[in-house]
Amino acid sequence: MNLLQLEKTGSLKLKQGPVPKAGDDEVIVKVTHCSLCRTDAKMWKSGQRDLVLPRVLGHEICGVIEEGKKSFIVWPGSACGYCRQCKAGRENLCGKMKILGFHKDGGLAEYVAAPKSSLIPVPDDLPGDVACLAEPLSCTINALEMANVSAGENVLIYGAGPVGLMAALAVKAQGAYPFITDINKARLTMTENFQDRTGIAGTVKASVPDFDVVINAAPSLDTFVKGIDNLVSGGCFCIFSGFTDKDSVSSVVINEIHYRQLKVVGAYGCTRRQMEKALIILRKYKDEVKLLIEGHIVLEQVSSVLPKILAGRALKYVVEF
Amino acid sequence: MNLLQLEKTGSLKLKQGPVPKAGDDEVIVKVTHCSLCRTDAKMWKSGQRDLVLPRVLGHEICGVIEEGKKSFIVWPGSACGYCRQCKAGRENLCGKMKILGFHKDGGLAEYVAAPKSSLIPVPDDLPGDVACLAEPLSCTINALEMANVSAGENVLIYGAGPVGLMAALAVKAQGAYPFITDINKARLTMTENFQDRTGIAGTVKASVPDFDVVINAAPSLDTFVKGIDNLVSGGCFCIFSGFTDKDSVSSVVINEIHYRQLKVVGAYGCTRRQMEKALIILRKYKDEVKLLIEGHIVLEQVSSVLPKILAGRALKYVVEF
Repeated sequence: MNLLQLEKTGSLKLKQGPVPKAGDDEVIVKVTHCSLCRTDAKMWKSGQRDLVLPRVLGHEICGVIEEGKKSFIVWPGSACGYCRQCKAGRENLCGKMKILGFHKDGGLAEYVAAPKSSLIPVPDDLPGDVACLAEPLSCTINALEMANVSAGENVLIYGAGPVGLMAALAVKAQGAYPFITDINKARLTMTENFQDRTGIAGTVKASVPDFDVVINAAPSLDTFVKGIDNLVSGGCFCIFSGFTDKDSVSSVVINEIHYRQLKVVGAYGCTRRQMEKALIILRKYKDEVKLLIEGHIVLEQVSSVLPKILAGRALKYVVEF
Repeated sequence: MNLLQLEKTGSLKLKQGPVPKAGDDEVIVKVTHCSLCRTDAKMWKSGQRDLVLPRVLGHEICGVIEEGKKSFIVWPGSACGYCRQCKAGRENLCGKMKILGFHKDGGLAEYVAAPKSSLIPVPDDLPGDVACLAEPLSCTINALEMANVSAGENVLIYGAGPVGLMAALAVKAQGAYPFITDINKARLTMTENFQDRTGIAGTVKASVPDFDVVINAAPSLDTFVKGIDNLVSGGCFCIFSGFTDKDSVSSVVINEIHYRQLKVVGAYGCTRRQMEKALIILRKYKDEVKLLIEGHIVLEQVSSVLPKILAGRALKYVVEF
């Protein structure tokens, strides 16, 4: 089969290899769609905490078990199922977590081996190129759940990239009000269609001062410092993107959490249940989400689009097989 | 009446003054007991964000309306009652908050004017010197509520001062397991009686690695950095004491919140409801709490004990009238 392998940092190779063999409780999925994530681009460029090389990347996967039959999306994690985190429904925090495209070979290949229990059936009226976006969308759902977003609340999202906009859709889907802000005006212009259609306003500067929740879909520590300031007393900042700055946060900012009884919560990855929830939102907003797909490409084109994704100048690319 | 007035930072004067007049919806309380807090000592030494001078300090108050009759403790806040925070039961975050001993004259005087609605009746079997400790105890209850401490959880408290130990009692009262740690061995030795009687172990180094909740009853930013490390994935750090260091926290520590889905919550002050809850705990543990009282003093002695309180070398002093 054809596959794209990250041999070492910076070196992605198109190769031929054997179709993987199904392990215990696994099934072989024929990949139909795999969308690219900025983390894929980061792994290619500089590695990642959970990446084990050499590796077939790709963790936003849609495929079939039998050609021409029902589609499934794949929860990319696999957890022990027995630890305290798994039992509490937080399997994304399982100490034994192995992730497709990180610890195990992922979806940038014609076939991928996945645990049977990780497959989630796709509704018949949802096309595969939209369905594979359930993974990034479900990560934003995890953020909203961690921040306990309720109907009627004002939610500010830093970062108008595709994941920030998907977070905004998830906010809207539960009856809260999303606001998008991005210091890069070009990124706001790039998604004007999406903003018009959804009624989600994107601005260079946050307008309302007192947000109930702030989420960063941008890796600058500055969003944390400003975001804390943007919160109403008792409000919540969700750290959705890790911070890439080598900078630090002053005790004055940390003390604001104390004096105004703020909450700061982390969100990392998603659970199987959250992916099911994502499919419901994708079905409701499939025409809107399509506006976030910049292009459909083939495996051979992946290397050429990664620099643009890494630079934050692209929406979603979906690899089709 | 006799009163102790902070005229300006560092200058506390014993004075004679008129008994205050009750404003609308206020009542005059004859103070029987007022315990001293480290914040009183800080205000005397260097001021405080909410302090308006000149001021009669004292916010841990027990008193009577009619001589020889029923005792009341006084919730030191007064909130608007109409804003979003008040309506959500978080009146300690009300933007119009005025606090006795901070914005208005407090309990280091023979009489204090307090809103009628702030008075909470003391059970007949609870002595006034213990009852006035409901205020600091209720602030720790606020912390536990913010951190959502549940029965069976392991809770680490940094700081073996009287408030840290009261927090430990509150943890115990709700069926969770308190652990106390303090880098200052002398402080641990000072409260050995309390630790023996309650079974709460105090150690110089935290032993269990994975705590569900960590609370700082100590003002060093180091407790934050270490506390984040002490938490199980998904666990919660409660910022109970503001940080006095001018230092900062690196993005590496902040990213731990992201990767391990931790929570960081602030706690500041208390609500009237939490003071009612504190009375229930005080009744249950009154003999244990008495061990936290270092001495009963009169108004004239306050100035002489403040330096010791400020240095963290004292337990609770209760002023009796």
